[in-house]
Amino acid sequence: MDTGKILTALRQRRPLIHHITNQVTISECANITLAAGGLPIMAHAVEEAAEMAAGADAVVLNIGTLTPAQIEAMLQAGRSANKLQRPLILDPVGVGTTSLRSASVKKLLAELQFSIIKGNAAEVAILAGGVAEIKGVEAIAVSADVVPLAAALARETGAVVAVTGEVDLVTDGQQLLEVHNGHHFMSRVVGTGCMTASVIACFAAVEANYLAAAAAGLAAINTAAELAAEEADGPALFKVKLFDQLSALSPAALTARQKITEGQLP
Amino acid sequence: MDTGKILTALRQRRPLIHHITNQVTISECANITLAAGGLPIMAHAVEEAAEMAAGADAVVLNIGTLTPAQIEAMLQAGRSANKLQRPLILDPVGVGTTSLRSASVKKLLAELQFSIIKGNAAEVAILAGGVAEIKGVEAIAVSADVVPLAAALARETGAVVAVTGEVDLVTDGQQLLEVHNGHHFMSRVVGTGCMTASVIACFAAVEANYLAAAAAGLAAINTAAELAAEEADGPALFKVKLFDQLSALSPAALTARQKITEGQLP
Amino acid sequence: MDTGKILTALRQRRPLIHHITNQVTISECANITLAAGGLPIMAHAVEEAAEMAAGADAVVLNIGTLTPAQIEAMLQAGRSANKLQRPLILDPVGVGTTSLRSASVKKLLAELQFSIIKGNAAEVAILAGGVAEIKGVEAIAVSADVVPLAAALARETGAVVAVTGEVDLVTDGQQLLEVHNGHHFMSRVVGTGCMTASVIACFAAVEANYLAAAAAGLAAINTAAELAAEEADGPALFKVKLFDQLSALSPAALTARQKITEGQLP
Repeated sequence: MDTGKILTALRQRRPLIHHITNQVTISECANITLAAGGLPIMAHAVEEAAEMAAGADAVVLNIGTLTPAQIEAMLQAGRSANKLQRPLILDPVGVGTTSLRSASVKKLLAELQFSIIKGNAAEVAILAGGVAEIKGVEAIAVSADVVPLAAALARETGAVVAVTGEVDLVTDGQQLLEVHNGHHFMSRVVGTGCMTASVIACFAAVEANYLAAAAAGLAAINTAAELAAEEADGPALFKVKLFDQLSALSPAALTARQKITEGQLP
Repeated sequence: MDTGKILTALRQRRPLIHHITNQVTISECANITLAAGGLPIMAHAVEEAAEMAAGADAVVLNIGTLTPAQIEAMLQAGRSANKLQRPLILDPVGVGTTSLRSASVKKLLAELQFSIIKGNAAEVAILAGGVAEIKGVEAIAVSADVVPLAAALARETGAVVAVTGEVDLVTDGQQLLEVHNGHHFMSRVVGTGCMTASVIACFAAVEANYLAAAAAGLAAINTAAELAAEEADGPALFKVKLFDQLSALSPAALTARQKITEGQLP
Repeated sequence: MDTGKILTALRQRRPLIHHITNQVTISECANITLAAGGLPIMAHAVEEAAEMAAGADAVVLNIGTLTPAQIEAMLQAGRSANKLQRPLILDPVGVGTTSLRSASVKKLLAELQFSIIKGNAAEVAILAGGVAEIKGVEAIAVSADVVPLAAALARETGAVVAVTGEVDLVTDGQQLLEVHNGHHFMSRVVGTGCMTASVIACFAAVEANYLAAAAAGLAAINTAAELAAEEADGPALFKVKLFDQLSALSPAALTARQKITEGQLP
C-alpha cells in the first residue's frame, strides 16, 4: 500500500474535518488534524451541525463527553455526511461504561452509515456483542480474540473497523491489515485514541478505499509516535513532539517506515 | 507608539479578563492571558455571565463553538461591559460558515457596542459585507483588498478593527496601523487567533486608546512568536515557547522589537 | 507519614477517578491523573453522572465553568459516591465571585458529604464565612489567618480541608499538616490548582485516612513541580515537565523529598 501517496494528496487538498467531539481532547484533535495536513472545524450546536458537516470533507463523531443534545447534533451531522457521501468516522469512547453511552452508540449505528469505526479492543468487542472489561476509557481485558469480533462488526455495519492496540488491526470483514508502527508512550497520554480517529478521517477524506485510508492514517500517527519517542523522556514532551513529527512527516518517510502487513481472518 | 509603556501598566495592574469562548482554545486563551500579564476568568453560564463581566476589566466574546445559550450569555456579559464602559472584544470565529454563526454575530453587533473586533481577512470581509472564502476557521481567499473593508466595518460599528495575517492591520476607520511582527508558525497551531484576541483584551484593559491597545497587543504576541520560533523546530514546541516568551517579554524588549508602521487608508 | 507507600498502592491499583469539571483544565486534569497513576474518566451528562460515579474509585467535583445542569450532575454523582462510601473531593473554583457559584457550592455542601475540600486561601476563607478578595480564580487577600478558618470549615463539614499556597495546609479540624514542597511556577500556569485536586483524589482512592491522602497528594505534585522547575525556564515548558516528573516520580523519591510537618491549630 502506498501510504505516502495518500499523504501527498492530503497535504495538497487540505480537507476540512468536522468534529463533534469531547471536551477533553478537542484541542488535541484540532491540532493533530492540522499537523496531518487537514483543516479542523469543531462545531456541536444542533443549530449548525448539519450545515457544518455539509461543508466538510469528512466528519468525526466522538462520544467522549456526550450529552443527549450532542447526540442529536451527531445524528444531524451524520445524516449530512451520509447524504453527501462524505466519510463518517465513529469513535465510541467508553462505550459499555454507562447505559447512556451504549444506547447512544446503538442509536448512531442504527441511523447512520459509518465509513470507519475506530475503537480500542474493549470498545470494539462490546460493539460486536462480545464481553470486555473497560475502566473509564481504557481497555482492561477482552474475553475473546478481538479479530473475529472486529470482522463481525465490520460485516454487520458495513464500516471498516480499526482496532487500536499494541498492533493495530483494520478490517472490512473480508480483509485484515495489521499496523505494527507505534510506541508505548501513546497509552500514557490522554487522547491519542481520539487523535488517531482525526488522522484517519484526514486520510479517508482523500482516499475512498477506507481500508487503505484507515491503515495509512494509523501508520502515519504511529510513525510520528516512533520518531517523537526518540526525542522525549516522558509522555508529555512526547505529545508535543508527536504533533511536530506528524507535521514534518514526509510522504517518502511514511512509505519507508510503514509496517503494514496482511493478516488472516478466521 | 510606546508599546512597552502599555505592557508595564498591564503587568502592574493585572486586569481581570472575562472570556466567553470556545471549548477548543479555552485553555490556551486562559494561559496566554496569564502570560501577557492579566488574570483570566472563563465563565459562560447565562446565570453568572453579567455578574462576572461586571467584575472584570475587559470582556472577550469568541463564537468558536457557539450555542444559542452561549450567545445569550454573551449578550448579558456584553451589556454589563457596555454599561460599565469596559472594553468589549469580539472574535467572530468562522463567521460566514453557517447561518447560526452569521445570525449570532449580527445579533451581537446589533445589540452591543464593541471596542475591538479581531478577525482574519475572510471574517472581517464577511462582516463588512464583502465576499470571502473561509474553510473552517481559515481564511482562504478574499475577493477584494481587505483594508477598505476593515475601515468600513470600523466606521459602521464604531469599533477598532484588527485583521490578522502576514501583516496585521488595525484601523478605526480614520487611521491605519500595520504590525509587521510575527512568524509563520502561528498559522500552524490551532488557537493563535483566539489567543491574539485575549492579548489584545489585556492591553485594552489598561489603555483607553483602543487603536494603540490593539496594535500593542498584536506586536506583543507576534514579538513573542518571533522569539519562540528561534527555539522551536515545529509548531507544537513553538506553542509552548510562545507562552514562555510572552511571559518573559520585557517592556523594553517589546519597544525595541515592535514593527508598527502607519499605513494609508484609501 | 509514608507517602511513598501510598504512591506504591496508587500505581498498583490504578483507581478510576471520575471528574465533573471545568472546560479550561479538563485535559490537564485527565493527564495529571494518568501521570499520578490513576485512570481518568470525565463525564458530566446528568443522564450518566450517577452511573459513572458508581463505577469510579473517587469523584472530583470542580465548579470552574459551572452551569445549573452541571451542578445537578454533580449532585447525582456525589450521591453515588456517598452511598458507596467512595472519596468525594470538592474544588470550589472561584467561589465568592458570583452568586451562582456561592449558591451552587452551598447546595453541594448541604446535600453531599465531602471527603476533602481543596481550595486556595480565599476560597477556603469564603466557604468558612470569612472575608477574602478573589480576582477571577486567584486569591488576592484574606482578611484573617486562614488556619482557623480552614479548621472551622473542616469541623463544620466533616471534610478534610486542603489549602494551597506557598505552604499548603491540610486539616481535619483536629490536626494540622503543612506541606512545604512546591515551586512558584505553579502559580504561573492555569490549572495547577485543579490538577492538585485530581492528584489528591488519586491518593484518597487508595488511602482511607484522608488527612494523610491529601498531604501525600500535595507532596507528590509539589515534588514533581520542584523537579520540573529544574528543567524549565518558563511556566509552559514547566507544565510539560510537571506531567513527566510526576509520571516518573518513584515512591522512594517521594518519601525522600517530602517536606510535611505538623503544625499547631489555634
